[in-house]
Amino acid sequence: MTSSPAHDISRRAFGMTVLGTGLASLAWTRTASARQAGPPRVDGARINARMAELRRYGGTPAGGTHRLGYSDEDKQARVVAAGWMREAGLEPVTDVAGNLIGRRAGTDASLKPLLFGSHVDSVPDGGNYDGPVGLLAAIEVAHTLRTRGIALRHPIEVTLWANEEGGLSGSRAVSGQFEASELSRATASGKTVEEGIRFLGGDPRRLAEARRAPGSIAGYLELHIEQGGRLEAERVDIGIVEGIVGIRRWDVTITGFANHAGATPMDRRQDAMLAAARFIDMVNRVVRARPGRQVGTVGRIEARPGAPNVIAGTVTCSLELRDLDEGVTTALFQDISREAVRIGEATGTTFAYADIHRTVPAPSDPQMRALIETSAKALGLSTKVMPSGAGHDAQAMARLGPMGMIFIPSVGGISHSPKEFSHPEDITRGADVLLGAVLAADAAR
Amino acid sequence: MTSSPAHDISRRAFGMTVLGTGLASLAWTRTASARQAGPPRVDGARINARMAELRRYGGTPAGGTHRLGYSDEDKQARVVAAGWMREAGLEPVTDVAGNLIGRRAGTDASLKPLLFGSHVDSVPDGGNYDGPVGLLAAIEVAHTLRTRGIALRHPIEVTLWANEEGGLSGSRAVSGQFEASELSRATASGKTVEEGIRFLGGDPRRLAEARRAPGSIAGYLELHIEQGGRLEAERVDIGIVEGIVGIRRWDVTITGFANHAGATPMDRRQDAMLAAARFIDMVNRVVRARPGRQVGTVGRIEARPGAPNVIAGTVTCSLELRDLDEGVTTALFQDISREAVRIGEATGTTFAYADIHRTVPAPSDPQMRALIETSAKALGLSTKVMPSGAGHDAQAMARLGPMGMIFIPSVGGISHSPKEFSHPEDITRGADVLLGAVLAADAAR
Repeated sequence: MTSSPAHDISRRAFGMTVLGTGLASLAWTRTASARQAGPPRVDGARINARMAELRRYGGTPAGGTHRLGYSDEDKQARVVAAGWMREAGLEPVTDVAGNLIGRRAGTDASLKPLLFGSHVDSVPDGGNYDGPVGLLAAIEVAHTLRTRGIALRHPIEVTLWANEEGGLSGSRAVSGQFEASELSRATASGKTVEEGIRFLGGDPRRLAEARRAPGSIAGYLELHIEQGGRLEAERVDIGIVEGIVGIRRWDVTITGFANHAGATPMDRRQDAMLAAARFIDMVNRVVRARPGRQVGTVGRIEARPGAPNVIAGTVTCSLELRDLDEGVTTALFQDISREAVRIGEATGTTFAYADIHRTVPAPSDPQMRALIETSAKALGLSTKVMPSGAGHDAQAMARLGPMGMIFIPSVGGISHSPKEFSHPEDITRGADVLLGAVLAADAAR
Repeated sequence: MTSSPAHDISRRAFGMTVLGTGLASLAWTRTASARQAGPPRVDGARINARMAELRRYGGTPAGGTHRLGYSDEDKQARVVAAGWMREAGLEPVTDVAGNLIGRRAGTDASLKPLLFGSHVDSVPDGGNYDGPVGLLAAIEVAHTLRTRGIALRHPIEVTLWANEEGGLSGSRAVSGQFEASELSRATASGKTVEEGIRFLGGDPRRLAEARRAPGSIAGYLELHIEQGGRLEAERVDIGIVEGIVGIRRWDVTITGFANHAGATPMDRRQDAMLAAARFIDMVNRVVRARPGRQVGTVGRIEARPGAPNVIAGTVTCSLELRDLDEGVTTALFQDISREAVRIGEATGTTFAYADIHRTVPAPSDPQMRALIETSAKALGLSTKVMPSGAGHDAQAMARLGPMGMIFIPSVGGISHSPKEFSHPEDITRGADVLLGAVLAADAAR
């Protein structure tokens, strides 16, 4: 414990009355009156100006961003981010995995580092907010600490993770989950992961050096856009992520019998397309029948031979299930495969499943959640505890230490699209919550 | 009217008691006793030996036939067929559309020609029976007439139509339905239709000369495999085609909203895949709900963006409806598009239809049907009046004169597949029925 201003502020934040999410409007009233005496604030204008500036690197005519991991635009954005890190008093270095990490020492050399950050790479023809919001807020938190002369006990590291959209390559190298076999995998940029890491200044041969041991960090915090529409719909300011869902993915093959669409009567068909249709509808029904926030999706489909005048003999489609509790996805898959047997019997088809992907759920740390909630309340913001349905670098960091994630509203719930949008005020609020959480975590841990 | 043997035989056939299809087993008993006194028969061994011989040209290791229209194998098979035509007393010529036509004069020079035949081209990796059965039976009928010294009043033309599987190119050139714009269309053989016609010895520049006027033929008969499973299932020997169904085809575009499959809750999705699934199931239900033999098929589907982790924003699929009565397909489409509106409302999606194909139904001639039935009964064979769900050259010929089609059973109802199979005895029976019908048509018309 030190008597640093940060510590005092975080103590004050802890002492504030916790407001329920239903009191959002009251909370707003409090904000105005609390502005003078409240917790320190980031420079929202600077974050949002930088959000616009970052669009120079991969901004598209459609209004979105095409900044693939390991692309020229990605590299250019990192150079700019490194400059902003230096302005924020951070010392940026690229690790062997291609992550850009801006470090600042703490007052207590014996403490583990506190990490916070996000990414700047995008999906093809993606939006402007998924990644940059969290990274620029993290740099801004460091900048605010410097400007206000706030010293932290812990060393801090602002992290710009490499190739998030391409499979969390950078953060998973640090958490020890990255497999050597992934190096040869092609990425959307056209480079393999190995070429990409080298392109960013990393060293794929020495990748093991990026790895950190579980327990080696004081904690990890990440601000991100929600990418769903709950916060906006429920008029909640801040989402407190209770965990990042686990993902199960299967290739489903439905086998019927290809035959002449004219000469084969309706009652003599073994139509794999009909069976697939009933399967997709059933997946939706089964997933929705259970209370909870689990999701199930069939996004890919292929029918063979695939002609208008031939009854489909084979259909392959994807099945993806996500939930915070892997027991739920397991139970859903059991229900789905049991019901599929009946569909197969009714349509003269058979179902086969190939298990192709599994990510285990990554719960956030309860104390981190409490810190985020307290930080939001201190700012008079309403909160909601919710899962992250999307994957994030935070799930890799959860393996190394206590993880917390902060969501801000996505307008219309749209993401991975040029239409992705979050209000500048919400970005600023999210950064303020991150700042408060960082201060509180520094004090608490 | 002449006193030719053919005439006598057909008169005898007309005089026989008509047996219902429910009396199939009784009919079989009659066959044995009627064999000596009955109508003339073809040489079944010769047809079936030639069926095997034809497989030299495009036979596949899988046991099927790959003899694409306008391919080398197609041309080779036609050379062999031309030889068989000569043996049968026919004079083969290739018309400007690439059809191979074997002619024999009749005893009455004032009469219009009587045509019968089929095709030898196949779909890619198709079967051995779709086409060859009808062509070899037609040549065999002519051969039998020659061997038995039976003169016909009408000139006869045994027709080997070009590129049946590629769109009835040859027969439609003769019926006047072929459009000049089709000449540049690519075919499965790799050649354009124009190149294909030239390859077979036709002259695409003079295609109009192949055209015949409505009313210019005495009639057209075609033997073909059923390609469906009704005859086999109902243990009926011979199908009497009441007409070739009309076909309507649409491209259906379902528009939802592509979004993140993890971050978008189930109740906030506009999932084009879910809407497509309900559409396909509904099409099946609507088509089956109405009494009748109409069929409806969705054989092609494409979902975009088509990733397991993205909710489909757009799905396009085919919709094909077939029936003998175009009023039925029109009513079905109305029902389908009305129900699709409800699916759209429930799923937050919209449906749009592009009308891409229409073939009008081609009813067979009632007198031709009666001739076929009489011919079959004279042979002690059971019959069933049924639509042809598949398209055939006969539908083009129906524009020029009275058309009749004879079906024999397809084992398992399988067609356009190496597994396509019809029993040799059924092929012989079909050829016998064709012979009787030709004789009867010659006498009647």
